[in-house]
Amino acid sequence: MIINDETICAPATALGGAVSLVRMSGPSAFEIIRSVFIPSGKNTDLSNLKGFTIVLGEIRDGDELIDEVLVSIFRAPHSYTGEDSVEISCHGSPFIVTRIMELLLRNGAVAARPGEFTQRAFMTGKMDLSQAEAVADLVASGTTESHRIAIQQMRGGFSGEIAKLRSELLRFASLIELELDFGEEDIKFADRNELISMITRVMELSDRLAGSFRLGNAIRNGIPVAIVGKPNSGKSTLLNVLLNEEKAIVSDIPGTTRDTIEDTVVISGMMYRFIDTAGLRDTTDVIESLGIQRTNEKIMKASVILMVDEVLEDAVKINQRAESIRKMTEGHDKHLMIVINKTDRCDAYHIENLKSLVMTGADESLLFISAKNNHGIDTLKDSLGKLFRNENYGRNDVIISNLRHYEALTHVSDSLGRVVSGLAENVPDDLIAMDIRQAIHYLGEITGEITSDEILGNIFRNFCIGK
Amino acid sequence: MIINDETICAPATALGGAVSLVRMSGPSAFEIIRSVFIPSGKNTDLSNLKGFTIVLGEIRDGDELIDEVLVSIFRAPHSYTGEDSVEISCHGSPFIVTRIMELLLRNGAVAARPGEFTQRAFMTGKMDLSQAEAVADLVASGTTESHRIAIQQMRGGFSGEIAKLRSELLRFASLIELELDFGEEDIKFADRNELISMITRVMELSDRLAGSFRLGNAIRNGIPVAIVGKPNSGKSTLLNVLLNEEKAIVSDIPGTTRDTIEDTVVISGMMYRFIDTAGLRDTTDVIESLGIQRTNEKIMKASVILMVDEVLEDAVKINQRAESIRKMTEGHDKHLMIVINKTDRCDAYHIENLKSLVMTGADESLLFISAKNNHGIDTLKDSLGKLFRNENYGRNDVIISNLRHYEALTHVSDSLGRVVSGLAENVPDDLIAMDIRQAIHYLGEITGEITSDEILGNIFRNFCIGK
Repeated sequence: MIINDETICAPATALGGAVSLVRMSGPSAFEIIRSVFIPSGKNTDLSNLKGFTIVLGEIRDGDELIDEVLVSIFRAPHSYTGEDSVEISCHGSPFIVTRIMELLLRNGAVAARPGEFTQRAFMTGKMDLSQAEAVADLVASGTTESHRIAIQQMRGGFSGEIAKLRSELLRFASLIELELDFGEEDIKFADRNELISMITRVMELSDRLAGSFRLGNAIRNGIPVAIVGKPNSGKSTLLNVLLNEEKAIVSDIPGTTRDTIEDTVVISGMMYRFIDTAGLRDTTDVIESLGIQRTNEKIMKASVILMVDEVLEDAVKINQRAESIRKMTEGHDKHLMIVINKTDRCDAYHIENLKSLVMTGADESLLFISAKNNHGIDTLKDSLGKLFRNENYGRNDVIISNLRHYEALTHVSDSLGRVVSGLAENVPDDLIAMDIRQAIHYLGEITGEITSDEILGNIFRNFCIGK
Repeated sequence: MIINDETICAPATALGGAVSLVRMSGPSAFEIIRSVFIPSGKNTDLSNLKGFTIVLGEIRDGDELIDEVLVSIFRAPHSYTGEDSVEISCHGSPFIVTRIMELLLRNGAVAARPGEFTQRAFMTGKMDLSQAEAVADLVASGTTESHRIAIQQMRGGFSGEIAKLRSELLRFASLIELELDFGEEDIKFADRNELISMITRVMELSDRLAGSFRLGNAIRNGIPVAIVGKPNSGKSTLLNVLLNEEKAIVSDIPGTTRDTIEDTVVISGMMYRFIDTAGLRDTTDVIESLGIQRTNEKIMKASVILMVDEVLEDAVKINQRAESIRKMTEGHDKHLMIVINKTDRCDAYHIENLKSLVMTGADESLLFISAKNNHGIDTLKDSLGKLFRNENYGRNDVIISNLRHYEALTHVSDSLGRVVSGLAENVPDDLIAMDIRQAIHYLGEITGEITSDEILGNIFRNFCIGK
């Protein structure tokens, strides 16, 4: 456990709102709060207060009353950071927050860097590194699924699996290293068959986790969708229908409306991000100003391509357009959905006829909608939702969503692959031991047993201040 | 005291940030929190917890973990609202806040209206109406002075003065009404001379408070300043010099940068608002596109007029322009400051000469600056600062800043004026009593002894949700 000399402070809430929190943590947290805070109860002595209690009182700068506040007391190690901590709950005025921050800094605290509270929680052993990373993911999570992954990771579900793999490998590494010490006597402590079956088990688990990254990444960052098609096919109407429903949901709860992230919708707990919808946002369908080059770029960036056409279009042309998209995306992992719009303009017979003429590939969908009348939109959303409902992962399975973890797991699998082939080819024990140690190293990087200032810097730089 | 049946909840912090607070208050607050919150300590029973304690645990929607949170417990009447209350401190994700709100609403809470927590604090007698109003002012306060007035009002400094006036008047009203009951016997309980001297005292205090409104309003809403002058005199450079210093101060403390309110500066704790600076914001001085009509409107909206000219301008023309402004603003309470810019373009002799030629009125200032070289700007700011440093009000004097209070005090003075003249003219006691009652009524409106749904509605409508 590393002990920090400095006491850090930062606003923990966004500016605006009825209430603001200022957070302070470190060895002098209580000393500093005593010098700026006068409890209302005459006999209240902050030094004697238990953790997890709240004190009403005044923040004062000398004679000047800054605010009436509530101060929450947390005593080491029973706090978020594992250190002595206080939280000042003041009126939600940026002016007051600034004054309180100034006062704390003047009395010996230093301004916290982004993520420094969580970094301290990691350093005092309150959480491992993947749990710390999950805190940022949790704050950023905007959908049911990304929230679920983040909270599972924060609770240590992922860390548990990694720790299990690591301790098995450590046991074998020790045995092999023991053999090396007795090298000349040719003693085998580690059972080679047991080792191979264990390594295989670890590799399977590591591969399964790494394999979940595709889904995890889609959940965390959203699934890129391109809406393409000829002018006047109703692309903008479709986009607006999809976007407007979402907005209605978001603004349902008073006080929780948020700055809408442009052009995303959430379907079955997953976020879909529409790529490059400039020119599609108008309610009237405008001639798409994008050239062929930009449309192609858009398709290549997407995981899902909604190709929009209309019922009165010639089936041959629809097939040609779909075919050109198929050629472009061949070998890439992309989903094509052919969406025929404006079913309000024809009868059921025409639709049936068109359905038999438009060709679709194995994993493709053909959908008939009327964006104008909101017909077929639910089916379209169901189809989108099904694309990423991966049957291989259950509700409680660990799914990784972090590129750093994915890369570490890939290294683990590589190292263990070398162990397996090394054992088959009878390579010297010291090389085998080295590869096992390498796998252990990469597993340790995930949870933070192995770390460096650079890794920590990269991780916590992306946190917000006060977290 | 009014008891509310409903339990209200709302987010109390702005969205974004590391931490969010959700607040709940009302008779079922503990029952509702028990149904969604599982404390981490196995033996923790929320029913037995004292107020002002914090509990760590999980918010759960059935099986699903929504977040790990801290719940603060406040028991009636020792809470902000005077009711049983809890505050949930969760991770600062809008998604999580929405989920927690949904969960509380589903379990029987209702969404709080703007200001409803503070309205309840008023209804349960935790604060009077002028104190409740001060809460909103405090949240909105952005300068040392507006903060000082708001916090003084919230602490009841103003209410104390009003209560004193009111109780004196009430005593006399009762005595006079007693006389009316004994009407035919012509008994005088109230000493007429004492009454007159008391009424005069109350009127003086009421007038003094009402008189502080001009300053209080300037402090609360900022002082409107017009920058006018001929093209290329350096108006935009001056504006930018004033604005840029301010911005540097605001962004000093990490994490507290705020959306800058456009075109305001704070000097000596007072806010100055620049009127209609469109066209002045460019760094190069543009030909002012405003016509004479709009310049005149700008001048009439301002309390301070900065008339900018330059050193190479003819003194006669400068005098003409200043004179036209004086004519326009005659009889209005406005301050003219003549600012001669570009002192870098001439020598000291030229400045002395110009100084002797430019005429200034009694309360006007003549200032020489170089906006480009930042010369004379501090003197300009000092002069601005002095305009509203009212020597009549000391640091601890009560200053009113609320239009509603000002209007009520004006009514008080009117009613008491009628009492004084009525006594002089021997009008019947029942009419005198009526006027005293009216003054009492208006004083009661300020602190909320007398109120109506309309008054309350007007006041709390302007609060934010969660306050």
